[in-house]
Amino acid sequence: MKTKKNFINTEDLSRDQLKELLDHAIRLKERPYNEALKNKSLYMVFFNPSLRTRSSFETAMSQCGGSAVNLSVGQDTWQLEHRPGAVMDGSASEHVKDAARVLSRYGDAIAVRCFPYMKNWEEDARDTVVRGFAEHATVPVINMESSMYHPCQALADMMTVNELYREPRGRRFVLTWCYHPKPLPMAVPNSAALMASTFGMDVTVVCPEGFELCDQVTDGIKANCEREGTELRVVHDLEEGVVDGDVIYAKSWGSLKYYGDWDGEKVVREGLKDWKITGELMEKTNDGKFMHCLPVRRNVVVDDEVIDGENSVVYRQAENRLHAQKALLMNILGEG
Amino acid sequence: MKTKKNFINTEDLSRDQLKELLDHAIRLKERPYNEALKNKSLYMVFFNPSLRTRSSFETAMSQCGGSAVNLSVGQDTWQLEHRPGAVMDGSASEHVKDAARVLSRYGDAIAVRCFPYMKNWEEDARDTVVRGFAEHATVPVINMESSMYHPCQALADMMTVNELYREPRGRRFVLTWCYHPKPLPMAVPNSAALMASTFGMDVTVVCPEGFELCDQVTDGIKANCEREGTELRVVHDLEEGVVDGDVIYAKSWGSLKYYGDWDGEKVVREGLKDWKITGELMEKTNDGKFMHCLPVRRNVVVDDEVIDGENSVVYRQAENRLHAQKALLMNILGEG
Amino acid sequence: MKTKKNFINTEDLSRDQLKELLDHAIRLKERPYNEALKNKSLYMVFFNPSLRTRSSFETAMSQCGGSAVNLSVGQDTWQLEHRPGAVMDGSASEHVKDAARVLSRYGDAIAVRCFPYMKNWEEDARDTVVRGFAEHATVPVINMESSMYHPCQALADMMTVNELYREPRGRRFVLTWCYHPKPLPMAVPNSAALMASTFGMDVTVVCPEGFELCDQVTDGIKANCEREGTELRVVHDLEEGVVDGDVIYAKSWGSLKYYGDWDGEKVVREGLKDWKITGELMEKTNDGKFMHCLPVRRNVVVDDEVIDGENSVVYRQAENRLHAQKALLMNILGEG
Repeated sequence: MKTKKNFINTEDLSRDQLKELLDHAIRLKERPYNEALKNKSLYMVFFNPSLRTRSSFETAMSQCGGSAVNLSVGQDTWQLEHRPGAVMDGSASEHVKDAARVLSRYGDAIAVRCFPYMKNWEEDARDTVVRGFAEHATVPVINMESSMYHPCQALADMMTVNELYREPRGRRFVLTWCYHPKPLPMAVPNSAALMASTFGMDVTVVCPEGFELCDQVTDGIKANCEREGTELRVVHDLEEGVVDGDVIYAKSWGSLKYYGDWDGEKVVREGLKDWKITGELMEKTNDGKFMHCLPVRRNVVVDDEVIDGENSVVYRQAENRLHAQKALLMNILGEG
Repeated sequence: MKTKKNFINTEDLSRDQLKELLDHAIRLKERPYNEALKNKSLYMVFFNPSLRTRSSFETAMSQCGGSAVNLSVGQDTWQLEHRPGAVMDGSASEHVKDAARVLSRYGDAIAVRCFPYMKNWEEDARDTVVRGFAEHATVPVINMESSMYHPCQALADMMTVNELYREPRGRRFVLTWCYHPKPLPMAVPNSAALMASTFGMDVTVVCPEGFELCDQVTDGIKANCEREGTELRVVHDLEEGVVDGDVIYAKSWGSLKYYGDWDGEKVVREGLKDWKITGELMEKTNDGKFMHCLPVRRNVVVDDEVIDGENSVVYRQAENRLHAQKALLMNILGEG
Repeated sequence: MKTKKNFINTEDLSRDQLKELLDHAIRLKERPYNEALKNKSLYMVFFNPSLRTRSSFETAMSQCGGSAVNLSVGQDTWQLEHRPGAVMDGSASEHVKDAARVLSRYGDAIAVRCFPYMKNWEEDARDTVVRGFAEHATVPVINMESSMYHPCQALADMMTVNELYREPRGRRFVLTWCYHPKPLPMAVPNSAALMASTFGMDVTVVCPEGFELCDQVTDGIKANCEREGTELRVVHDLEEGVVDGDVIYAKSWGSLKYYGDWDGEKVVREGLKDWKITGELMEKTNDGKFMHCLPVRRNVVVDDEVIDGENSVVYRQAENRLHAQKALLMNILGEG
């Protein structure tokens, strides 16, 4: 019997397994069309909007001869309950357990996007929806971004770094917090930093005080660094943090200190509007490449001159979603 | 010239025709992939949400080489008017007549889901939207659940019963009303009971007083029973009703007595919260199988221990939607 | 290197190029299935609802072996900003520039529908969203209806006229304004009149005073007429305008005079409810064919007896969307 291969967090796979996926993705970029997923169906369950994720997954399936079904929860489908044992007398009319079991009967994999509710950190951090699907589905479940992780983005990120540098090991990966009018989820920075540390990059997290990554992820990064003989640096000064960076990975996220207390965070955030990637700042880097997962608020998170400049690789990153996910889907669903 | 084959109500087909469809579905379950619907397009017009219906129809098309277009009315598409001769100066900007005629020009079949508005029974009972599509389309129209019928669900239900019992004839099919916080449509219970009676099962409807099925459907069930030499029983006591049941088909629905008067029904409904399928209740049955069309409110309609127990066949039922609809589509759209 | 072929306005192509497309469309109507777009992906970005456009594009792709991804902005995807250099601290979280660049990396063409906001004419007339996609995408961009143009509709319209009349040249094309409870965009009348004049038809625009087409389009029509040796007539009396018409193309649109001032326009509009196509009116035409792009408000814009009468070609028009767009897609994306 074939083992069910979920993909919830890059940490679920070894560095070698991840490397194999990324190498396959590079080969698929050269030869994009095949029939490896003929007769395969992927169900994409979206609790939140998407442009890249949906388009790249749907295209990955069709370019390999398969098909994808797009389901927007609470719009195309019913509201879903995720608490085990819940007495369902509220607004949700279907349980994740049943949705997962049913979709497992129709097709070959389920991909789920569920952002955090941004109210209660402990609850969000459990990723109950995506993990609920993974627990109950009898087919593989792919995380298309949960509260904690965005592993498909991290695959594309690392594939991009691999294309830029023959040897990422020892290169300086700077994850920089940026201002944004709203508190955003932490899945992207979490997965990006975990992935970079897995591949032996020197990881610097630059953020205002109170905006550090959560303990669980920080511990994971540290463990990776220790194994790879590198170090995690946390810097609270933007100008200092980006110095000598090879990769400047910009992203905004919310503060754990004010999690669920938007009024409190708003005041602090007002004083952080200069946390923005400018041309001047990029000059301090080691000819650093600018990365961002998109969507991005231009001239708030990053100036046009940087994202439109020649060191920006954001579209390559976005494109690599397609190739990396194709490699993932072929690994998970293919005959091999 | 080929006759246009609509599928609005299971009663439109003879028992033999239905049996043939179900037998084909069983064979398709073994050999799911073919090219019988190559170049065929199905337009799925949803006035209401869906998980199983959409996924199973879309997958049925793709597994047979065809494709499905998903249209959510009032979201992807315009609001639709259905009254013949209407002066369209309200919110609807397109008439069902025109939508049906146009989609008929693009593809091969139209599937429509339109729940009742739950205000006026006489109006809802006419199924004007689905029947409007059927009247005006020049390609076959499939009912994906109207106010009155959910024939595709009934196909999957009966296919499931056929898998469970070599001979359904004479088996006791118990349709049990259950508590639910909201008044739900009657399409599922209507079609389930009609179908069971068509195949010679002994049909028991268990429901509180005032929650009987409508006269039209009751008459249809009685006519089927008479033809098959069986009997329709209506019981107003849950414990009594399930005794010796071979199939316990749970479902909640609204009261015709209070149709459109939600405040009135709410009061009555408050006293009916013990109408729930429990493990204790299942003990009174003849090793009865638990069936439900899903979505289901767990621990409100049915306890976890029952739906997750070994006599529950709800996922098989859901899976059989795929196979039964594939048989239906091949019958309606295939070359044969 | 292949030139990127956008399709924003029928005026971007010569009459000969348009004729070639239409002739191809006629041939495709006879032989609808091929594999010319195998492995090709089209991204359809909808800022507004659609029935015909979505269904016909999606089916055009699948009938030619390709696939289409449907993206509803602000529902499936993020809100999009279109102003160059914008400081994005408002509700939009992604720039058209980035969406266009990213989708260009995944597939082969982007189709965009973006209706006018109906507030500021100068701004709407710039078609910034569709033109923004065209500017930034590195793959062809197709206009699925912008503020100014609906070129795919115009292709289907002219294909229909070509089917009706061996020689459209010199035939009288009457574009008639009709009453409608709301001010509608001008894209359809603009493109229809431009296209008719391109092919040498005598164009009459019949509308109440204050409802004339904009100067830019009027100048374009006049230039076409001059080149073809015909004449543009503008008539403010409905009965007079339709006399001897070969084609009665009905459509409602907003007044430029009251653009953005709905309260002002409403008063004027109340007095225009008799601007409706009736059977009596059609008697004054030259056995005129009734055309409308749909959706249409029956018995407000046109009486049932006309649209359901034998001189109505509205479903043929709608069907021709499929064939014309297939010809367009094959021209833009095919290998040829």
